[in-house]
Amino acid sequence: MEEKDLESLVKAVQKAVFVELEASGRHVHVTEAEAQRLFGHGLTPKRPLSQPGQYLANERVTVIGPKGEFQNVAVLGPERKEAQVEISLTDARTLGITPPVRLSGDVRNTPGAVLVGNQGKVTLEQGVIIAQRHIHMTPESSKAMGVRDQQVVRLQVFTQRPLIFEEVQVRVSPQFATYVHLDYDEANACGFQPGDLGRILP
Amino acid sequence: MEEKDLESLVKAVQKAVFVELEASGRHVHVTEAEAQRLFGHGLTPKRPLSQPGQYLANERVTVIGPKGEFQNVAVLGPERKEAQVEISLTDARTLGITPPVRLSGDVRNTPGAVLVGNQGKVTLEQGVIIAQRHIHMTPESSKAMGVRDQQVVRLQVFTQRPLIFEEVQVRVSPQFATYVHLDYDEANACGFQPGDLGRILP
Repeated sequence: MEEKDLESLVKAVQKAVFVELEASGRHVHVTEAEAQRLFGHGLTPKRPLSQPGQYLANERVTVIGPKGEFQNVAVLGPERKEAQVEISLTDARTLGITPPVRLSGDVRNTPGAVLVGNQGKVTLEQGVIIAQRHIHMTPESSKAMGVRDQQVVRLQVFTQRPLIFEEVQVRVSPQFATYVHLDYDEANACGFQPGDLGRILP
Repeated sequence: MEEKDLESLVKAVQKAVFVELEASGRHVHVTEAEAQRLFGHGLTPKRPLSQPGQYLANERVTVIGPKGEFQNVAVLGPERKEAQVEISLTDARTLGITPPVRLSGDVRNTPGAVLVGNQGKVTLEQGVIIAQRHIHMTPESSKAMGVRDQQVVRLQVFTQRPLIFEEVQVRVSPQFATYVHLDYDEANACGFQPGDLGRILP
């Protein structure tokens, strides 16, 4: 076998076995109308994220809770139909709120927060969640790994402080790239470094 | 079987199978000489900790790193032969240092920090660690659970965000009470609540 064939074989096997980890810091999603109020214009892309079409915006906000605030918080684009603030449990303590652990998009009966941009302020009645750990997956990865959309799996991570995350939700879409998303508490608990890999356990 | 016999049987089985979890926030150990410099006297107990003889002191310090500081940090007594500052990875980022993950007492070649008390200041050349997760265990628990001192085990935690910690170090001593010690990153990553239990996996 030639060197480059071997290399592509190894890569194919890796792709069928391992999923790259990513840590999501605290961030905010806003609607078009909210972007107008906060910044006087729609979101503008600073750099693309791993998920196709998603980007880190140039715009930043302050997130204010009853007990504390975070300045300079990342806003992710494009705009969504509903605002969402994703923070860690550590962050929640600082803000003084107790959001539930939820999958992105499920914001019913969650606490709110105040967002402040360079042009204005928005008071969210709800929308603050602790993002449930999940795996974004292409249909190809889903097939290769033998898991389906909505499946809940155990994920072993090969990190400095190795552990196995239970109850990790798989989400499959042709719009996704295959990555595990952890929050910073989870990333720190396992000693995550960029490039670290995980493996779905049978 | 009588009610109270059943109860004590259940408790005995629980003790042989489950270990209670505890989360350690950031804290500091100091020597007698350092306590004198920081507070003008030795440490005084505010309340006992789960480990016999250990206590939370009335005295508090500010811990200062190159990039940030934490005020009002807990000091644990009694005094030790060597100072030690135990923080989480999240805390380390705030202070601007990169301590290794170590077992308590192993502070060779670790970064230092500045401690400030109400009477004086101490500059530690070394002593800052991220505490490696571990299980304090009585000889009785060790026997009941079939694990020995220094053994590295996997620990499944029954928490809101369940997971399995790998590479958890067992420490057995007649001076210990049986508890798992996690740092706040780990506690938040698994959604720890006081009273939560873990189980050593075979």
